[in-house]
Formats: sequence, C-alpha cells, structure tokens
Amino acid sequence: MGKSKSRVRQSRERAVVLLSGGLDSTTCLALAASKGYELYALTLRYGQRHQAELKAAKRIARHYGVKRHAALHIDLAAFGGSALTDKTMKVPKGRSMRSMSHGIPATYVPARNTVFLSLALAWAEALRAGHIYIGVNFLDYSGYPDCRPAFIRQFERLAKLATKGGVENNWDLKIHTPLLRMGKAEIIRLGRRLKAPLDWTLSCYDPKANGIPCGQCDACLLRNKGFQEADG
Amino acid sequence: MGKSKSRVRQSRERAVVLLSGGLDSTTCLALAASKGYELYALTLRYGQRHQAELKAAKRIARHYGVKRHAALHIDLAAFGGSALTDKTMKVPKGRSMRSMSHGIPATYVPARNTVFLSLALAWAEALRAGHIYIGVNFLDYSGYPDCRPAFIRQFERLAKLATKGGVENNWDLKIHTPLLRMGKAEIIRLGRRLKAPLDWTLSCYDPKANGIPCGQCDACLLRNKGFQEADG
Repeated sequence: MGKSKSRVRQSRERAVVLLSGGLDSTTCLALAASKGYELYALTLRYGQRHQAELKAAKRIARHYGVKRHAALHIDLAAFGGSALTDKTMKVPKGRSMRSMSHGIPATYVPARNTVFLSLALAWAEALRAGHIYIGVNFLDYSGYPDCRPAFIRQFERLAKLATKGGVENNWDLKIHTPLLRMGKAEIIRLGRRLKAPLDWTLSCYDPKANGIPCGQCDACLLRNKGFQEADG
Repeated sequence: MGKSKSRVRQSRERAVVLLSGGLDSTTCLALAASKGYELYALTLRYGQRHQAELKAAKRIARHYGVKRHAALHIDLAAFGGSALTDKTMKVPKGRSMRSMSHGIPATYVPARNTVFLSLALAWAEALRAGHIYIGVNFLDYSGYPDCRPAFIRQFERLAKLATKGGVENNWDLKIHTPLLRMGKAEIIRLGRRLKAPLDWTLSCYDPKANGIPCGQCDACLLRNKGFQEADG
C-alpha cells in the first residue's frame, strides 16, 4: 500500500466487523459495507467442532473487499463448559421452538461475546476504528446472557475505561448491534435487500464431515424456520 | 483424578489466577495460595517477542501445585499497535522514573487486560470459580488505562451481565487486585513474606536471546529499583 493511498484511506471511518460466516454476521457485514466504512473483518475460531465456517467467512470477506480479514484461533475448548467446544457434551437436537426459548442452552459458550468483543476492541483501538459490528440478537437466543442489550451497553462503557484512546482523547467507540431486536426471518429479508450472499453462509452447530448441516440442532432449526417465514 | 477426590475438592473454593511469570502475578498466585483456594493458573501468550516468561510461569505454577495450568496463545500481534507485539516498534530504553510516570507508553498493548479478564472470566464460569486474581497495579503503571480501579470495578459489573451464572443463579464473581495500590518494593516485600519464588520470575520486555534481561526497559528499571528499595 502506497503512502498517498494510505492518507486517502485514513479519512474513511473504519469498522471492525465480527464475522463468523453465519447468516447474522454476514448480514451485519453487508450492512456495515452499505454505510461506506473501511472494513476489517474479524473471525474468531474457538475450538469449535467444525472449520467450515472459516472457509465461508473468508469467501464472504473477499466478496465485500474488506481491507483486512484477521482469523484468530482461541482455544476456548481448553476451558470446557459448552457443547460447542467440549467433545464430551452433546449438541441438543430436534428441540421445539418453545423449549429453545427457555433457559440457557448447552451450546452456550462461557463468556463468548465478552471474549469476542474484547478482541474486537483490541483491534479497533490499534486501528483507531470507531465502530464495531456484532450480529447478536436476543429474540431467538433469549437464553444467551451476552446477547442482551444491557450487556452490550455495559461493554461500551467498559471500552471507554479500558483503552488509551478512551482515556487520552475521548476516542468514541460505538458497538453496533443492528440485528438485536430482529427475528431470523427479518434478518434474512434484510440480508436479501442488501444482496448479501446468504447462500454461502453456514449456521449448523454440528455439521457432518463434508460440511452438510445436520438440520436438527437449534441453529439449523432456527435458520430453516427463518427461511420458510421469509419466503412465505 | 479419582471420583471421590474430585468430590472432596468441589468443596474448596476455586480461583483463576492470571500468571505471566513476572513478579506481580507470581506474588498474586502466592497470595491466592495462602488463602487456600483450589488454584487454576492461566498464562496468556500474546505474540510477545519472548517466550521465556512461559517457562517461568510453568515452573511457578508447578511450585504452587495448581490444579490446572492453562497456557493459551492469542495472536494480538495480528492487531499491532504495541511495542510488545509489533516488531517494527521499539521498546523504550533507559527512561527516567519521571518520564515513565507520564502518559501511556509504547509498551501498552491495546485492550490487553480486557482480553485477559474476559478469558479468565470464560474459564471461571466453566469452572464455577468465584474468584479471579490479577496482579495489576497503577502506581508504577499509571499510564495503563486498564490497570485502574475504575476499569476493574466496571469489568466486575460486566461479568454479572455477561454470564449464565450471573444471570441464572446470581453467581458471585470477585476480581481480586491485591497489588492495585502497591509499588514494586512493597510487592517484593509481600512476595518474600509469602516465600514466593521471586528469583524465578522474569519482568523484562525485551530480553536477549538467552533470556537475560536487557536491564534498560521500563520493566527492568522498575524491577531493579524495587529490589533496591526492598533491600534498603
């Protein structure tokens, strides 16, 4: 990158977008792209059972011409405590929408969004990016404590205290959660309106070896119901 | 580990201790050990220039008979922005105590303690540990925003909102910062009183290839001054 190009680019506002390669984060990236930010996609692999999402994330990041795509591995599996990282725990299958909406599921990864946002914060500060996008929503996932609006607002307050930028020059970091109050069908409709490549996204918690979704985990059931509703 | 032993141990309170292998975190571990907790040491490597600290941390963790020592690598170097992770930036050498106490130094790692505490939180929740120990202190490092008491208290509030335990059953997590208001000499005196193996610890930001401290970075200067004062 030449120096003059760098100077021009500095004037564009930067956004760090957490990109898993699923429906929600892809729609988030599409939305951030539509606002004209210089985009930095951050994919965090955390000892999941599958790596197919990373491939999807790379393809999607390229599609949006992100300035940089960082993929970090964090071995949350070392801590256990979740069906998504602990091979001895089972991913729940075939649950009703009703049972999904009650309590915190076994697929909850301890403090996941706190870890994700803190890494996004680290990158945002190094880049002096004023925006972080995260595709959390709490209608479908009411059971995940770290998808709730109160958590996000609290993290924003923490960011101000935690960083050199926040302390020295009142660096203003906004955490964008545009999907917070949307259901899956609404997210899909938004993604389609933005021409996001939703076909490339993966949602399954427990895909088969060839990457084919299981069709029965909470994420598959919610995704499929969302597409049905969006098409209906 | 036998099942019966596991049952007995459950009754002991658990503490996750952030252990870098330096003076401060080693004294912190010694203090947590003196309180009788079942200990879980967490060493986070973040793309530092040197790996000698990890070796020191392993030796110290073994010395205290920790139940488990987890060493995770997080590639904060991918984000840049600090002389500790970015090879193109220089570690400041030979600074006066006065200049050290003004402003945020180049060795500041963006959002480091937010990342560290969020990972400690993830493990603490998975373990149902009610305690995290972190050896931050803000007298010598007034320039690091994420070493200040206000930051720590804000993180404690976040932890309650961020976790299943905090939401479902009022899991009470306490973040212990026993060194918060101590200078180096005071920390060294405390470590000695607790018979912590301070000789094994490493502080240097920029050691030579054989692990020998440079003697001139802020961390070396503060350490040496601390030992002089403690001995004086």
